Amino acid sequence: MMNDEFIKKFDFFQDTQIIFGAGSIKEAGDIVRSFGENCLLVTTPGVDVLQPLYASIKQILKKAGVKVAHFDGVTPNPTTEDIAKGADMARSIGADVVVGLGGGSSMDAAKAIAVEATHDGSCWDYLFYKKQPTDKTLPIITVSTTSGTGSQVTQVAVVTNTENRDKSALYNNVLYPRVSIIDPELMVTLPEFVTATTGFDVFCHAFESLLHPKRGAYVELLSKEAVRIVAKSLPKVLKNPKDVALRSAMAWADTLAGLCIANAGVTLPHGMGMAIGGMYPHVAHGQSLAIVYPACARFTWRYAKDQYAFVSRTFNESLNGASIEELASIADQQIEGFLKEINLCQRLREVNVPENEIEILAKQSMVLPDYENNPKVASYDEMVQLVKDSY
Amino acid sequence: MMNDEFIKKFDFFQDTQIIFGAGSIKEAGDIVRSFGENCLLVTTPGVDVLQPLYASIKQILKKAGVKVAHFDGVTPNPTTEDIAKGADMARSIGADVVVGLGGGSSMDAAKAIAVEATHDGSCWDYLFYKKQPTDKTLPIITVSTTSGTGSQVTQVAVVTNTENRDKSALYNNVLYPRVSIIDPELMVTLPEFVTATTGFDVFCHAFESLLHPKRGAYVELLSKEAVRIVAKSLPKVLKNPKDVALRSAMAWADTLAGLCIANAGVTLPHGMGMAIGGMYPHVAHGQSLAIVYPACARFTWRYAKDQYAFVSRTFNESLNGASIEELASIADQQIEGFLKEINLCQRLREVNVPENEIEILAKQSMVLPDYENNPKVASYDEMVQLVKDSY
Repeated sequence: MMNDEFIKKFDFFQDTQIIFGAGSIKEAGDIVRSFGENCLLVTTPGVDVLQPLYASIKQILKKAGVKVAHFDGVTPNPTTEDIAKGADMARSIGADVVVGLGGGSSMDAAKAIAVEATHDGSCWDYLFYKKQPTDKTLPIITVSTTSGTGSQVTQVAVVTNTENRDKSALYNNVLYPRVSIIDPELMVTLPEFVTATTGFDVFCHAFESLLHPKRGAYVELLSKEAVRIVAKSLPKVLKNPKDVALRSAMAWADTLAGLCIANAGVTLPHGMGMAIGGMYPHVAHGQSLAIVYPACARFTWRYAKDQYAFVSRTFNESLNGASIEELASIADQQIEGFLKEINLCQRLREVNVPENEIEILAKQSMVLPDYENNPKVASYDEMVQLVKDSY
Repeated sequence: MMNDEFIKKFDFFQDTQIIFGAGSIKEAGDIVRSFGENCLLVTTPGVDVLQPLYASIKQILKKAGVKVAHFDGVTPNPTTEDIAKGADMARSIGADVVVGLGGGSSMDAAKAIAVEATHDGSCWDYLFYKKQPTDKTLPIITVSTTSGTGSQVTQVAVVTNTENRDKSALYNNVLYPRVSIIDPELMVTLPEFVTATTGFDVFCHAFESLLHPKRGAYVELLSKEAVRIVAKSLPKVLKNPKDVALRSAMAWADTLAGLCIANAGVTLPHGMGMAIGGMYPHVAHGQSLAIVYPACARFTWRYAKDQYAFVSRTFNESLNGASIEELASIADQQIEGFLKEINLCQRLREVNVPENEIEILAKQSMVLPDYENNPKVASYDEMVQLVKDSY
């Protein structure tokens, strides 16, 4: 009865106003002012390359009549301590609005600060499985400077608990930024390695959403567009880092992929990648994903042939004549080819993961629930094999 | 400097939770209940085919503990009088939430009632160019039964002023439905002519958004998908009206197109179509668009070659080898071919428009600002020619 036009049941929600495009940052003043007069600006400490940007946004905000307090204490993988300090500052200035300027760490910190500044206890008390933050949460505005986390359009804030060295997430619709300013001109100074790893993470967000049981027609449309853009533009932007057009393409792909994870989610590779990042913090998030992707493709393609065939076709247009089965079966090689092109093709041993920790790593890969959302759910033994296959 | 990957500046905002898919209506109870206990259900008078649906939703709502008052006084092209009566009822029951069940008329009426019940004066005082409705507006939930208006995901409510026989619109973000339940099973009883006219209107919403100056990468992605689905599924659903898969495809295309008009808008053909509908109410909205589309294509294609080439390729895949210029230049014929396939290929004279009213109709086509958003803006003389070309 059902044919291929059937649109299966899905939910979709995303209430961030997206302001996209070169020069958008100029609008930040009026936008922030519309939420109030007192603004907490949240960033990482100002390394040299960022100082002009910080000065520039402060000027834009002040011109619009916004009083700015600058919390520049965000560390990579922001901690509950960072959040507590930021929340103190937000309360002390009577902040009406929190602006997260930077990559995922700054944006996630801004979200968690917006909660902690307005609720009892610590942001850690409001993790996705605990009591939930309310409408009291301060309005959040993001200005993203990387293309990779998708955080500018998600309801997620990842935080690390300093005391027990645990990493977890707040997840609630009140964390959707009210406005997300995405200005690709802010991204032209991103170093090559960061561009490659965050850019590959965009692909991962989009593609894993395509594997996720919560995907629907809306996510599929956005996801495929993101995958197509990454395949086309990421190799080029690595060669032309100052090209605003290429940066805009990647920023748009990142936004699409963020919309996907907000409404579907990540699967097996992210589960493994998070475990690698947790145990070996010197391995960048996108690098950890690159390491496990070919093995995950070999493990999964039989259970998601359409999706893996789509990846093969997108990464290698010359394959267009092959069957779905053929295309899906060689997705691992197409992904490896792409990773070589963007200089991210590596194995666990090459990033100094000790061979005798393979089993612990497999166990850690099954802590977050992500791997359970894979089309084929790995048993512990299979997870050990996946880690070995990536070694 | 800029290449074809450049994503030009755009804004996008849409905060409706979309609940899409066969059987979704079963969720209406819990959804409505989450907004309060007292609900005003807004519909047209119950003709026979609709009575079981009205009974069914009332039962679903009551089961969830919702008290329902039913305002079934919506007329096609809802009037300020309809709205006033509905708003009275909403106030008298202390409504917490308004549910619009039906096509565009019922959904638009629900939106206008949600405003008038909570603000001084009439909904007519809150038109797009007057003072604006506030957050006091009651939460709006829509359950759509046609695929054509896009109203389930827009911030627009079209109303007709009974006193001065004027038609205009409320347009504000507070009118976005909080939740939009889109259940294609509710659409299988739509008559053939309604399916064709509303289905063609989906194409028009999507395609005109692609011509609109406010379009951006997001709208372009959604718009092209909607056009592709209409081209593929509308002729089929006319032959298989009870096929839920085909109805789901059209409902999804309608939703995509609604997202497009919410973030871009309509252009010349809608300007002319609204004038035809205003002067000759016996001509259905989608029919009026069908009449003017080929002439508008001949008038516009040189100024939007990519878009018209896309239409030609989508309606006629065998044309794939031709150049953009060639494809765009024959878009009018491809559109006419499609209109023949869905039995909507007609001319103004065939719907009894008097020849001596051509000039008045041209003048009326320039009342709404839509025509000014066309890639080529028609002068009065050109508008007369467009009407003649459609005659």
